[in-house]
Amino acid sequence: MGFWKSLFNTTETATVSRSVNVEPYVPEGNRAAFAGAVAEPTASRIFFSTDRDLDLYELEELCDSVGWSRRPLRKVKKAIQNSFLVVSMWEQRGASRRLIGFSRATSDHAFNATIWDVVVHPEFQSKGMGKALMKFIIKKLRSEDISNITLFADPHVVDFYRNLGFMSDPEGIKGMFWYPD
Amino acid sequence: MGFWKSLFNTTETATVSRSVNVEPYVPEGNRAAFAGAVAEPTASRIFFSTDRDLDLYELEELCDSVGWSRRPLRKVKKAIQNSFLVVSMWEQRGASRRLIGFSRATSDHAFNATIWDVVVHPEFQSKGMGKALMKFIIKKLRSEDISNITLFADPHVVDFYRNLGFMSDPEGIKGMFWYPD
Repeated sequence: MGFWKSLFNTTETATVSRSVNVEPYVPEGNRAAFAGAVAEPTASRIFFSTDRDLDLYELEELCDSVGWSRRPLRKVKKAIQNSFLVVSMWEQRGASRRLIGFSRATSDHAFNATIWDVVVHPEFQSKGMGKALMKFIIKKLRSEDISNITLFADPHVVDFYRNLGFMSDPEGIKGMFWYPD
Repeated sequence: MGFWKSLFNTTETATVSRSVNVEPYVPEGNRAAFAGAVAEPTASRIFFSTDRDLDLYELEELCDSVGWSRRPLRKVKKAIQNSFLVVSMWEQRGASRRLIGFSRATSDHAFNATIWDVVVHPEFQSKGMGKALMKFIIKKLRSEDISNITLFADPHVVDFYRNLGFMSDPEGIKGMFWYPD
């Protein structure tokens, strides 16, 4: 463990030097393999950031990739500024990095948080990346002492969130929506 | 209409002088009766405020009245400070006023808002006050261009919110919760 751990720690420090808000992604039970991959300069690595200073066109491209309808960038910017937590997931390959996942949460900073806009690029889906992104968000919210983490899940991702420990309609509580006419 | 309107406007001005964030409650289709009631000094009137400078003990008393479990006031204060919108509902009788309703909403200030902690004192329930409070909140959120207003409803109030135009699980979207173990 000593060698791999030391290698991993070095890598982590190197990553952090790019931004104060980044954290590398280490696949569960696969730390040695991950560290090994990092040792190879042409291989890619995944890391997370909570930096809000995102390229909105890059974010729009990511949202396009999963077929979301476009939203005014002015409002997207405002929403990011006023979210409690913004998490982006990146693939780094050599000196270039690519936005491959995103999510954000609104909150009262005390009791409740609501997660919105969870997106993982199709090329990176079904590889545990969405799960890693969600676990990162939950960890961050828990570290801020938020106990009630909520979200509104589309039907096809209810099981994904259930596997992460989210419960739908606990004790009969119903998620409800009001839209303008 | 002239007389009542003039009377009502005078009353509205008098109310506003107490705070910049207050608005009187006028029962639907009942403006004349309401204005008449206001003309009687011993009668009560209802108004709303978006002022966050609430007496937290008074708020706790209101929450006690509906049987909510108590929460640390330090966290309640933080939640109020970090909510996008805070609405309180008051009964004014002569010079004294009493907190009879409360709610707040978190938001990204752009797309989504989530309403939390809707409470109306039992003495004022079943009189249209909860409906008036919710309509006030919706109006405020809409005036801020928030289009997606959400909440999590306990089973016994799902119909209350449905009557206000909220839909449960639209298009199969599920409200989901994550709690710490």
